[in-house]
Amino acid sequence: MVKNENAFTTVSYNKGVLTLLDQTKLPIEEAYIDFKTVEGVARAIETMVVRGAPAIGVTAAYGIALAAHRGEDIGESHERLSRTRPTAVNLFWALDRMKSVWSQGATLSCIEKEAHDIYKEDVESCRKIGEYGAEFIDDGATILTHCNAGALATSEYGTALSVIRAAHNQGKKIKVFANETRPLLQGARLTAWELMKDGIDVTVVPDSALAHLLSKDLIDCAVVGSDRIAANGDVANKIGTRSVACLLHLHGRPLYVAAPWSTIDMSLENGAMIPIEERISKEITHIGETQVVPTGVKVFNAAFDITPVKWVTRIITELGSTGMDIQRDLLKQLLGKGNKK
Amino acid sequence: MVKNENAFTTVSYNKGVLTLLDQTKLPIEEAYIDFKTVEGVARAIETMVVRGAPAIGVTAAYGIALAAHRGEDIGESHERLSRTRPTAVNLFWALDRMKSVWSQGATLSCIEKEAHDIYKEDVESCRKIGEYGAEFIDDGATILTHCNAGALATSEYGTALSVIRAAHNQGKKIKVFANETRPLLQGARLTAWELMKDGIDVTVVPDSALAHLLSKDLIDCAVVGSDRIAANGDVANKIGTRSVACLLHLHGRPLYVAAPWSTIDMSLENGAMIPIEERISKEITHIGETQVVPTGVKVFNAAFDITPVKWVTRIITELGSTGMDIQRDLLKQLLGKGNKK
Repeated sequence: MVKNENAFTTVSYNKGVLTLLDQTKLPIEEAYIDFKTVEGVARAIETMVVRGAPAIGVTAAYGIALAAHRGEDIGESHERLSRTRPTAVNLFWALDRMKSVWSQGATLSCIEKEAHDIYKEDVESCRKIGEYGAEFIDDGATILTHCNAGALATSEYGTALSVIRAAHNQGKKIKVFANETRPLLQGARLTAWELMKDGIDVTVVPDSALAHLLSKDLIDCAVVGSDRIAANGDVANKIGTRSVACLLHLHGRPLYVAAPWSTIDMSLENGAMIPIEERISKEITHIGETQVVPTGVKVFNAAFDITPVKWVTRIITELGSTGMDIQRDLLKQLLGKGNKK
Repeated sequence: MVKNENAFTTVSYNKGVLTLLDQTKLPIEEAYIDFKTVEGVARAIETMVVRGAPAIGVTAAYGIALAAHRGEDIGESHERLSRTRPTAVNLFWALDRMKSVWSQGATLSCIEKEAHDIYKEDVESCRKIGEYGAEFIDDGATILTHCNAGALATSEYGTALSVIRAAHNQGKKIKVFANETRPLLQGARLTAWELMKDGIDVTVVPDSALAHLLSKDLIDCAVVGSDRIAANGDVANKIGTRSVACLLHLHGRPLYVAAPWSTIDMSLENGAMIPIEERISKEITHIGETQVVPTGVKVFNAAFDITPVKWVTRIITELGSTGMDIQRDLLKQLLGKGNKK
């Protein structure tokens, strides 16, 4: 199934069939894959056919719906999906929410409705994140983003890219620098592709160029997504985010983290407790079929890092946003009540 | 011409034939190319068959010898070679030195001898840089390096890697993290290849991972090379060096810059005056034959950046080394007299 040029759907589900845009093929090919087994869905998450914390959560929820529709064992499906990727908490959040329905013996249509609700709520959360976040983006701003926290990482709009899209839609003349984001180049392959489709000015830069760009006064702020936020506000996100945060901090530029409320893990006191996924060496040693590291040489491939809250200017959620003085109680108090700032 | 597995020769010259190890083929293939025209040599420098400031200087010197041997116009050859790459000052230094010989109507053997002398002096400079630099490397240290400032970037030994080799040869148990160094991956392809051959413990890391590694206390110091050092001590080096310097500075870790004296350009007051080469987009948009940036999206591809002297702990040359208080007069005074520190 191939869609037309200007629209794309990251995740969709209909009657036991889960359809994913194959993000490993972008930006060369916009190809969709239909999945009819939970094992297929689990492998799609593991191999990053679909990636991005909210999109992984939505995909896992639909995976449970698919299991119910196909008559697969739902408990086993839950367990299999929960073993796909350890860092993004949205995965566990979505699976827990589905469990609260299926474990009570709900009908197929109730289970499918819950997954659709998670999808729809994610769309609405992302829209609101953009709305709340856009006020921090000045007209004429040049914005750095790292990895892809866009429509490809969520149901629609994105998180960081929703902020950028909302600012653009408000008529602000903005420019985006997209860190290419080694090793899997989500910035070069995905963020650039999304923003180009929306007519937003985007330039791809090597991850290492940031201090140079800051020295030339070319970066006003950065907006990134997150895979998990600890109770104290420490942020897990794609490897390299901590370097971005540190460099922006030293240059007095704000860093905004945009993520749905489901990304906040109140059970973990701080970022040191967030599990960090290490992925296979081949992501570093090869690019496509080209070998770029000598055979036998070790590589380091942690997929995420932790940005301490002291370097985060503001966390933007669908319930509002809060600043650097984030603490567990404050987060609960401010965001739990839907306070805008 | 293919050599045996464990030895390699970056640049060599014999009777009108310049032989270069083709660095664009590493680490997959160790292939040598013979050049018999100045145009061929110029293109080899431009396309980075040979790269690294000292190696470019030596190659250009041999290019003049080749022109003399082959009866090409030496003035035109000088001009053509000087147009290859703008940032590395060693190129202009070597060409000027050759000019001081050929412009006085020297014989072919005198011209060839001058090029050989530049080669031999570079070998000796690199050896001494290692000797002076190794004292700053503690036993058990974990050292970051960026790009390739090794034997592949010089006649032999390297600059930054000469420091690492000398520390290793002194029996110090060291570990090296090699930034892969986008876009052309000289760290992954070249530094890892060289150090592996020497039995030095090396791990390739994405450029973006440095703040994460520093947060885990995995980096004790960094040693890098340079393409040009201004009179005040500001350092031009491969894009990303400024980010490394800034992150090390914020974490209180020393940064050493290792380079031959010929890298220091006393005619430029500070780093802002150093010309920065911008290279073709394809280095970012494609890796091998794989396209990784959507067609039509802009990229940023400055090949170098400037690290301010305030973030440089020590500059190590073959005449000794000097610390953060570098000024034009001090440099002249300390280094010009061959003072060790």
